[in-house]
Amino acid sequence: MDVGQRLEAELDLAVARAAAGDCPPKLAAALRDAVFPGGARIRPRLALAVAAACDTKNPMASLVSAASIELLHCASLVHDDLPCFDNSALRRGKPSVHAAFGERIAVLTGDALIVLAFEWLAVRLAAAPERLAPLTRIIASCVGGPSGICAGQAWECEETIDIVRYQRAKTGALFAACTMAGAASAGLEPQPWQRLGFAIGEAFQVADDLRDVAGSAEKLGKPVNQDEANQRPNFVLNLGFDGAMAHFEELLAEAMAAIPPCPGAEQLGKQITGVSRSLVTGLSARTAAA
Amino acid sequence: MDVGQRLEAELDLAVARAAAGDCPPKLAAALRDAVFPGGARIRPRLALAVAAACDTKNPMASLVSAASIELLHCASLVHDDLPCFDNSALRRGKPSVHAAFGERIAVLTGDALIVLAFEWLAVRLAAAPERLAPLTRIIASCVGGPSGICAGQAWECEETIDIVRYQRAKTGALFAACTMAGAASAGLEPQPWQRLGFAIGEAFQVADDLRDVAGSAEKLGKPVNQDEANQRPNFVLNLGFDGAMAHFEELLAEAMAAIPPCPGAEQLGKQITGVSRSLVTGLSARTAAA
Repeated sequence: MDVGQRLEAELDLAVARAAAGDCPPKLAAALRDAVFPGGARIRPRLALAVAAACDTKNPMASLVSAASIELLHCASLVHDDLPCFDNSALRRGKPSVHAAFGERIAVLTGDALIVLAFEWLAVRLAAAPERLAPLTRIIASCVGGPSGICAGQAWECEETIDIVRYQRAKTGALFAACTMAGAASAGLEPQPWQRLGFAIGEAFQVADDLRDVAGSAEKLGKPVNQDEANQRPNFVLNLGFDGAMAHFEELLAEAMAAIPPCPGAEQLGKQITGVSRSLVTGLSARTAAA
Repeated sequence: MDVGQRLEAELDLAVARAAAGDCPPKLAAALRDAVFPGGARIRPRLALAVAAACDTKNPMASLVSAASIELLHCASLVHDDLPCFDNSALRRGKPSVHAAFGERIAVLTGDALIVLAFEWLAVRLAAAPERLAPLTRIIASCVGGPSGICAGQAWECEETIDIVRYQRAKTGALFAACTMAGAASAGLEPQPWQRLGFAIGEAFQVADDLRDVAGSAEKLGKPVNQDEANQRPNFVLNLGFDGAMAHFEELLAEAMAAIPPCPGAEQLGKQITGVSRSLVTGLSARTAAA
């Protein structure tokens, strides 16, 4: 099996645990629906790429961390799409969980996926308990308070937003979870890998902003122009299309410079660049909404 | 410090981590508001009582498990009160989190508390990694899918409810987490303690039903007659007041019989009986709403 297949198989095992026999049918269906079919699985693939670049000797710890991060990402999408947030009826080209199953099941699906993300680490790393505590801490700190995804979303409820803190918490933190957990799962000190995660996160935030303004709903599988509609900060609205694209390239260069010394640094840099650029391929000022 | 003070201090430390410096102010305030001042803290006290009855030699593992369970209980209350569920404006005698901070902050507060519950276990049990995996698994399985609190809530979204499974998942599971985590934190095999948790959970469900029908909103700090209003099953509506009270006593006797042999079994039985009976003290058929 290649990396992508191993990841899907791991996610499948995890979701099967939460959606097993006794599970109420709608919750079980919604849990599967929230995780499969996935998007590009960019975050867990980044975690696995970092672990490989660090020459991991514990591929199970890396795979489980990657799956846990993806479960949390899926949970955040389900809650993001709720009526009280983006009220988005479309996700990955199909009805969002709340559109398909109702708001109550959507809240519970997100909750159950958060629980599952931590449960799965404990289930699969029972035989490597020395890895469990640091990986749980790294991943949890990137999704909860004071500066994980929940905090990032909560900045949207404040009258004044600290934009750097906001972007870093909402998007950067989970990418930092990928790079740090990837390194920690390989037995390395995670802290030196944080800056890389934040840089990639910022680049992806700009790419996301570019796609929101200049992409098509059909290709993205979700509505576009959501930032303007929801009065959220967007780099393109601030810097213009070309300015945002230049900023994206700057951040990518910053990410390259932030890769800590490791056996597979060169290959890792190429992977990150390739995946990042693919996000903005085909976008142009011409396709941007007026 | 007595047990209650140690528990509050532990919860305070945990919440301070999630609501620290960088945290958006509203989320930080809502996190504190969701956890303090607490209710009777019945669940974490049960976990601590079981650990004491098992003569625990690791009081930190017991205390941290108890705090984690209480954080998850608080998270479930915050999400339960959301407009799409009970739409309750009152909790513990003050505005519920969504009433005070809005729906978005309420969703995020619940999410962040779930994350914190697992993060806190990993933070505090880093020095006892052999306890971390089993405690995380026990607690997670009692809150997620297929048969934890999330599943219990999700049964309310099904056309046909399996009432035993529903009550067991919605209420019983977290009590089973208390008895099982209490025993596991003391180094004992948790499985023999599950039945006690379920029996207490069922007794509490009946007590809760009695309070919903025959209690006062003022004393409970939350609205009464919610089951009838939300068309949820309620033992009093099925069995009548006296029938429900007799069933409550039966379940309490069942709980007593389910206490596994342990050094403090007798004392534990007295504590459980005392706390349980205090819940229904003063209720009578006369105070029940017509």
